[in-house]
Amino acid sequence: MVIGIDLGGTKITGAVFDRKGTVLCKQSALLERRQGAEAGALVREIIAQLIALHGAEEEHIAAIGICVPGIANSKTGKVWAPNIAGWEDYPLQQELEASFRTAQVHIASDRTCYILGEAWKGAAQDCRNALFIAVGTGIGLGILADGRVLHGHGDIVGATGWMALETPYREEYATYGCFESHASGNGIARQAQRICEENRLFKESVLYRTTPTSITAQDVFHAYEQNDPLAAYVLNKAITMWGMASANLVSLFNPEKILWGGGVFGHAIRFLSRIYEEACRWAQPVAIKQVRFEVSQLGGDAGLYGAGRLALMNVE
Amino acid sequence: MVIGIDLGGTKITGAVFDRKGTVLCKQSALLERRQGAEAGALVREIIAQLIALHGAEEEHIAAIGICVPGIANSKTGKVWAPNIAGWEDYPLQQELEASFRTAQVHIASDRTCYILGEAWKGAAQDCRNALFIAVGTGIGLGILADGRVLHGHGDIVGATGWMALETPYREEYATYGCFESHASGNGIARQAQRICEENRLFKESVLYRTTPTSITAQDVFHAYEQNDPLAAYVLNKAITMWGMASANLVSLFNPEKILWGGGVFGHAIRFLSRIYEEACRWAQPVAIKQVRFEVSQLGGDAGLYGAGRLALMNVE
Repeated sequence: MVIGIDLGGTKITGAVFDRKGTVLCKQSALLERRQGAEAGALVREIIAQLIALHGAEEEHIAAIGICVPGIANSKTGKVWAPNIAGWEDYPLQQELEASFRTAQVHIASDRTCYILGEAWKGAAQDCRNALFIAVGTGIGLGILADGRVLHGHGDIVGATGWMALETPYREEYATYGCFESHASGNGIARQAQRICEENRLFKESVLYRTTPTSITAQDVFHAYEQNDPLAAYVLNKAITMWGMASANLVSLFNPEKILWGGGVFGHAIRFLSRIYEEACRWAQPVAIKQVRFEVSQLGGDAGLYGAGRLALMNVE
Repeated sequence: MVIGIDLGGTKITGAVFDRKGTVLCKQSALLERRQGAEAGALVREIIAQLIALHGAEEEHIAAIGICVPGIANSKTGKVWAPNIAGWEDYPLQQELEASFRTAQVHIASDRTCYILGEAWKGAAQDCRNALFIAVGTGIGLGILADGRVLHGHGDIVGATGWMALETPYREEYATYGCFESHASGNGIARQAQRICEENRLFKESVLYRTTPTSITAQDVFHAYEQNDPLAAYVLNKAITMWGMASANLVSLFNPEKILWGGGVFGHAIRFLSRIYEEACRWAQPVAIKQVRFEVSQLGGDAGLYGAGRLALMNVE
């Protein structure tokens, strides 16, 4: 028996899993702007509740896996999570090990947990080589290569949002990275905002009726549905970038599957075949024939299942 | 005791290694345009000579590792090597296992062997995360991630020459890949040839004195030394591409080291600090601080040591 915890930016969800991956019980709570140690206390509270709810003894929990919205340093057990104030270098592993003395504690980034979850219970089952591209406010990549998730020297593999895909260099790339500047949720919003502020090329766009700084990625997708030319310009660019980026991942990793998910990608599912077509132009021609582009099967549960799998794989 | 064989496009070199990696004896021969089964026979001949030379019994050789100039299919044991006629799908593993019945046979691509060799006896010793960028007529990438070399679903990871780095798409990318079109040995030669054929923008270039189709990458490097403007244009572009490509590898793999080698890179060593500067503009800012760019330490021996390591790691 293990516990998996998905700590999101606004919500925390936990579950008790048996060794087959069945969810035995589940619990969640809103983070409600908790900061620093308060956020840590909530994680411990949810774990304690899950143990009580399941009626288990604490020592029957072999391991606890945690999916965090940021980076987990495997050497120090500390977490950097930009959306939780005070979690620049938070000693989550140490805290949890002090509270739950008999369980192993394993922490990994959300992007790593997403691919672990999908490989265990979702669209990448039986894959030894699969990638999860998470397109949300930013863009992250979870990597399963030859049957193992990758971590890298400093636990920050998969920073695919920083991929260089176009010359010349632009100043905004220094803050957001090139790929993310064009194709993340925030990037799509910013590109539309910039056009609204700088020029009036797309005269008939509905987006000009909004204050530029308030435009969101969702606004751009909605305008696109109404054949808005500015929205089409911004999203066509994003499609090119999604295609080029995924082509690069195909050439480098030679995966069986690339899974697309994340908050923004719900809206972008309709573009999947166009993204694949774009990727076909750029990728290594043999490798592109060996891969399939699919949508995340677990959706919002990918992180929770990934956390459960993270716990289980370390006790197996 | 193991044997490592480096099968190049023109030459074959083999060595007997002890378990510490000491070369006990070495042997080489020119391939002299041997094709198909003749090339396979030469590999067996070199192995037999090494066994005789070392005065060993055949059954004391625990494993044979082969570095091939192409792709080794780990499921079938067959090799695709574009520079050896008749090796589109050559059953090298099966042949060697039939001839040397007591030894395990392991085959890997040259790019994989390069990073294995450097991690064992070269510039990436003690690294668990390191990459080898081999810039020759093409561009390949050997990947050591979390202590293991990657293979991928169809054994073709590391096709980094196909990396998309620039819009708009150009027809030549369909044949060579975007990165390779600008920054491999053949790519550098072709870019110079194209400019010579299409325009005369760089009036004073010495390269206009040559028949365009006969221009080589070496000609471009030599012209660059004489401050030739056409050569400077072509190589500055290559430097930008080397910088962007390596930035992408840093963001994706979070390595400790990126090693540069291959036939063309001898000439390009002088550009290493400029390549690193370019990479700093594009890469994930934390990951770029964790990596060092260095030149291959083993040079032309990287493949041989990699083949030896490949043999040894599979019997350890």
